[in-house]
Amino acid sequence: MHYKERKESVDYLGETFRRIFPQDNAVREQARARLESLTMPHWALGDLMDLALDLAGMTRSLKPPVARKKIVVMVGDHGVTAEGVSKYPAEVTAQMVHNFVNGGAGINALARQAGAEVVVADIGTAADLGELVRTGRIIAKKIGSGTANMAKGPAMTRTHAVLAVEAGIEIAEQLAPTTDVFGTGDMGIGNTTPSTAIAAVLTGLKVEALTGRGTGLDDVQFRHKVKVIEQAIETNGPDPHDPMDVLAKVGGFEIGAIAGLIIGAAAQRKPVVVDGFISTAGALIAYGLEPFVRDYIICSHRSVEQGHRFMHDRLRLKPLLDLNLRLGEGTGAALAMNLLDAAVAILTEVATFAEAGVTGE
Amino acid sequence: MHYKERKESVDYLGETFRRIFPQDNAVREQARARLESLTMPHWALGDLMDLALDLAGMTRSLKPPVARKKIVVMVGDHGVTAEGVSKYPAEVTAQMVHNFVNGGAGINALARQAGAEVVVADIGTAADLGELVRTGRIIAKKIGSGTANMAKGPAMTRTHAVLAVEAGIEIAEQLAPTTDVFGTGDMGIGNTTPSTAIAAVLTGLKVEALTGRGTGLDDVQFRHKVKVIEQAIETNGPDPHDPMDVLAKVGGFEIGAIAGLIIGAAAQRKPVVVDGFISTAGALIAYGLEPFVRDYIICSHRSVEQGHRFMHDRLRLKPLLDLNLRLGEGTGAALAMNLLDAAVAILTEVATFAEAGVTGE
Repeated sequence: MHYKERKESVDYLGETFRRIFPQDNAVREQARARLESLTMPHWALGDLMDLALDLAGMTRSLKPPVARKKIVVMVGDHGVTAEGVSKYPAEVTAQMVHNFVNGGAGINALARQAGAEVVVADIGTAADLGELVRTGRIIAKKIGSGTANMAKGPAMTRTHAVLAVEAGIEIAEQLAPTTDVFGTGDMGIGNTTPSTAIAAVLTGLKVEALTGRGTGLDDVQFRHKVKVIEQAIETNGPDPHDPMDVLAKVGGFEIGAIAGLIIGAAAQRKPVVVDGFISTAGALIAYGLEPFVRDYIICSHRSVEQGHRFMHDRLRLKPLLDLNLRLGEGTGAALAMNLLDAAVAILTEVATFAEAGVTGE
Repeated sequence: MHYKERKESVDYLGETFRRIFPQDNAVREQARARLESLTMPHWALGDLMDLALDLAGMTRSLKPPVARKKIVVMVGDHGVTAEGVSKYPAEVTAQMVHNFVNGGAGINALARQAGAEVVVADIGTAADLGELVRTGRIIAKKIGSGTANMAKGPAMTRTHAVLAVEAGIEIAEQLAPTTDVFGTGDMGIGNTTPSTAIAAVLTGLKVEALTGRGTGLDDVQFRHKVKVIEQAIETNGPDPHDPMDVLAKVGGFEIGAIAGLIIGAAAQRKPVVVDGFISTAGALIAYGLEPFVRDYIICSHRSVEQGHRFMHDRLRLKPLLDLNLRLGEGTGAALAMNLLDAAVAILTEVATFAEAGVTGE
């Protein structure tokens, strides 16, 4: 059931990177000209118009397709939970997978509202999800049964880190023919801990400034979490100039797959809506591996996790929403997808001054 | 075609106020108990969960009805445009009404995206919109053909101010049987000027701190606008303890009707999503007249207009979105309506720990 090597793995990543190009500036400018002629004061819909430009530039279209939305919830377990960094036991990861598949989780409700489909992918759960795999209800890309405890040594090998990223790319390629917009999601008890470690290494900021309360830690638990993350970084010495090394040493399987999904979406020239803290750690890895992916990323929201804003700063991207969310699963991505529909509606449905016979400035 | 007196006008306002009660706290607490048992960390969907509580408390239901949405665009002209406070000529107000009716404006596109219907109501345009009235394509509640120039004297009489508010209440009552959620919208060239004046009088803050660039003024035009607003306040001496006096002296017909719509929605125990700067001026008037309306107001967004945040502070309400919008028309309300659907989905569609067999804390 574990993930098997692919024949083309020799330079799969490199080949994918070579298919990633910046947004198309000519189409952006055509979209801008249209938006500037609409029956409203100049740029009066602000960030929504910026988003419309991005969607046009990403998709090379003045009618950016956004109808078919898929939120991919990447799932993995974390050996570092042995250090007591989460309030929930690790078995909740697999329990939540069943909840996703049964449609009862937060992401299911919000994806339905946004007209998005939820796809669950096992990248590294500790539990055996065989029945769900056999019945095709989840995508099976398990690289390992949870990471090793990063406080004691590397979370995974470099080979496994590459495989996790490649799994995400493969999922993007597999879904691309039926998908206009991707959304990232995550499930993995304890995964704010590796995400914070990734943020600390890649932003160069102190662990304490980046660490949040996760699913609700008190002061003692918070200081313990900071110490565990500092210890993981000190023990493993991840190289900030080598994102794959960072992912391997202090990351997670599902975080690698999120990075891969972002890379795969960019290679397909499709927008990818990045969810919260964990997803943005994946985005930092993807951006480190191939900076052009940034042109396809839409940051959905700023979470309660205090380190999140520094990750957005590093990406130089502004999140659309700020609603004190801290759930993950892709819930913020689902909420933001409504704004993509709204941005496209502005670009494609509003009359110009000339069309409507309205006097301009 | 002008608005005729109603027979029951003697104490229509007072009767409406007497039907406004706070949110139902028992239903709020039932909703809270449900939300706290959902398969997610405590209150992990933050502001969305606060919104779900409000919707339950407003509608007295654990399945708050929000499907049938109507955004009412209140329209009026402003004599103060004679002072050159706007970049657009006053005839644009009526041109935009035709644009709304033809479905080509920003609000039409965003309302369609949100599943909301756009209703246009003429409260005080200078133009004759007779054809649209006769064909029933707009609601006809014209109180006057534009306000008088408030820089020279009161914008309207107190009687007309009362009639404008009553018109809004009547519209809410007329639409209520087919409406679950109201949204406010506005159209009126020059109407950031009276809105800023209302904000200055009711918050007690300086005009300069509250004045924005409206539809895009340069420095000279900005200073002129501040001076015009200061002059309007000085000339008319509106009484900050008498919101109807403020509306009459430095307000607008459509702003009064927005206040009325909010009051009417509250009396019907229905949520009302308040749009941007102009709508929030209407909300300040409504709140001044009857503080309990606050329990039914959902502030959709914080606009680019720099005074907007102070108006929200005065209402002690936090807007949901912050997207650098400055269009009005109800566009921010439309965008926020997706979040109401999302909040209700969380309250009604997510499984509890017990239901899903997930281990809690």
